[in-house]
Amino acid sequence: MPVTARDPHETDAEREAAQGGQVTGPLLTEIDHVAIAVHDLGAAVDYYRETFGAVVEHREVVESDGVEEVLLAVAESYVQLLTPTSDDSPVARYLERKGEGIHHIAYRVADCAVALQSVKDNGGRVIDDAPRPGSRGTTVAFIHPKTAFGTLIELVEE
Amino acid sequence: MPVTARDPHETDAEREAAQGGQVTGPLLTEIDHVAIAVHDLGAAVDYYRETFGAVVEHREVVESDGVEEVLLAVAESYVQLLTPTSDDSPVARYLERKGEGIHHIAYRVADCAVALQSVKDNGGRVIDDAPRPGSRGTTVAFIHPKTAFGTLIELVEE
Repeated sequence: MPVTARDPHETDAEREAAQGGQVTGPLLTEIDHVAIAVHDLGAAVDYYRETFGAVVEHREVVESDGVEEVLLAVAESYVQLLTPTSDDSPVARYLERKGEGIHHIAYRVADCAVALQSVKDNGGRVIDDAPRPGSRGTTVAFIHPKTAFGTLIELVEE
Repeated sequence: MPVTARDPHETDAEREAAQGGQVTGPLLTEIDHVAIAVHDLGAAVDYYRETFGAVVEHREVVESDGVEEVLLAVAESYVQLLTPTSDDSPVARYLERKGEGIHHIAYRVADCAVALQSVKDNGGRVIDDAPRPGSRGTTVAFIHPKTAFGTLIELVEE
């Protein structure tokens, strides 16, 4: 952003508007989870439990996404182990194309709609045009990896 | 692990030994960082800064790994943006083969040697046979994705 002379009477909101909607404070308050796609959920849970003493905090079938997930607690974040519950779910296609591995990263945000709007305002492509229900009673939205340096990003509001 | 009758006089250490070196407490104390491999470090930093108001906390060229990294702070964790500094570095080969995206996940541990030993004791393949210096003055070791459900895992001791 070019350095320009500023009107000292300009308010924060005016300054933000002049910057074309750029955010001024950090929107990402926590790595909510890192999602790992696996073929065998039980075996993956055993691996993290036996090797690292990880603790299962939550388990849920998310019908709308065609997955079963297990959350392992790591401080304020989670490792999310994901496996498809149907052959045509996005995670099933991911496993077929790329094999097991890190599927997406999710950031916790105070307001999913605000963060999603910032993505759009900055020219980012989105997968979910509006926030929608996620697992654990959260509100989520996915951002397209195309304009996010190859990374599938999920925004999570608790 | 099968449920067996326990000697009530058995100590924690004896119990652990009887379990074949399985850990009893959580070894992973924090998601240290999620590493994202990119072609253009400056453009990626701008993306996170402009879209999410992310703050650059650290920048370092790690000659031994052939990468330049930028750390963006997210609570107690980081997003690590990585770009190769030479054509034959592992990250350069990764970008060539798979394109931009999430490269590895790093967990903070109290003792890198202890966590690495637990991986070996549980039959996991490792990339670093012993802890070695990482960026920011840390001590690190990488675990092979082959026995970790396709995920390249780094253990980080601060």
